[in-house]
Amino acid sequence: MAAEVILLGFWPSMFGMRTMIALEEKGVKYEYREEDVINNKSPLLLEMNPIHKTIPVLIHNGKPVLESLIQIQYIDEVWSDNNSFLPSDPYHRAQALFWADFIDKKLYVCGRKTWATKGEELEAANKEFIEILKTLQCELGEKPYFGGDKFGFVDIVLIGFYSWFPAYQKFGNFSIEPECLKLIAWGKRCMQRESVAKALPDSEKVVGYVLQLKKLYGIE
Amino acid sequence: MAAEVILLGFWPSMFGMRTMIALEEKGVKYEYREEDVINNKSPLLLEMNPIHKTIPVLIHNGKPVLESLIQIQYIDEVWSDNNSFLPSDPYHRAQALFWADFIDKKLYVCGRKTWATKGEELEAANKEFIEILKTLQCELGEKPYFGGDKFGFVDIVLIGFYSWFPAYQKFGNFSIEPECLKLIAWGKRCMQRESVAKALPDSEKVVGYVLQLKKLYGIE
Repeated sequence: MAAEVILLGFWPSMFGMRTMIALEEKGVKYEYREEDVINNKSPLLLEMNPIHKTIPVLIHNGKPVLESLIQIQYIDEVWSDNNSFLPSDPYHRAQALFWADFIDKKLYVCGRKTWATKGEELEAANKEFIEILKTLQCELGEKPYFGGDKFGFVDIVLIGFYSWFPAYQKFGNFSIEPECLKLIAWGKRCMQRESVAKALPDSEKVVGYVLQLKKLYGIE
Repeated sequence: MAAEVILLGFWPSMFGMRTMIALEEKGVKYEYREEDVINNKSPLLLEMNPIHKTIPVLIHNGKPVLESLIQIQYIDEVWSDNNSFLPSDPYHRAQALFWADFIDKKLYVCGRKTWATKGEELEAANKEFIEILKTLQCELGEKPYFGGDKFGFVDIVLIGFYSWFPAYQKFGNFSIEPECLKLIAWGKRCMQRESVAKALPDSEKVVGYVLQLKKLYGIE
């Protein structure tokens, strides 16, 4: 019989990391299946996500739930007996969803530029990347987590990027730490959680993966 | 005293239309303020949305709620005594959120290309646009609304684009109707609702606005 919960992922994907962390935080039993998204997507992936053909795919009782932000909310709603990731107050929920959207619109796109561009474009990307992190750091403020005293929705959404920081810095040739000490401390704090430590790959392995990507796309 | 609910919008924006429809459907009293987003954004807009500086902005008791999809969810949660836009079942909620995400990622971007590109790029955009609509039409199936028997979240998210259909067709020089009869019928059905009729501008006015945009951006 098929496992009740299956997660199709790809280890360097910060989107897949989110869903794994959410499952781990809720103590859900699941089967993880690594996808070869670059060379050979599985028939199950193509069947479950025929529109985008992307990971992560969360399969629950044979039915797909797509898009990492939606998956985290789904997990939060279905396994609702534990602590919630999202606040119950509508305004605070809206704020958490706003920051998640901000991360996906800004940080992912700009992060990619730090290893995929050069010259003036790279310089602008590096500056923008730091500005985005500073904006996030300002939102974090003096709280231990974006969720306040507890690790919550925005923490889950953002933390995967932390494993990419060394890659961004190495290929972009810039340094995050001087202006983002609090955010780095937040990343270290999150890494102490079992869920995060399990889902995030070794940063050096991410550096190696980005090197592969640069070769694949002919970026020098 | 300031009105409790203020909506900052810009009439041709399908994103702003969504939030207005959501407020109207819930019977919320609000003050609408038209923004000149191209030439002169108001100090209130810049204060309430300093990060993106975009409309729509929903201001509730002096506090901003940003991003149209989040605003619809917020309105659904705060004025929850009426019919819900989103289904209560987590799986159906996840599906509705998926289609909303699909519309924003695919339809908006591709729609823009129908009036902002030419040659082969335009031809590809026209084909893709029809494919996206056919995918949505397939999801609609034989239901009167995406929400089933009742007008719901995905209906609110998609309907604003309907007012842009004549502009897309005119400037892209292609025809939506032959392959999307059911979707057109859905659009006409939605237009019979007071909320939609109030929020959607006249399509010919949208055509004029796109002409202005083309001049502004030097697109011939």
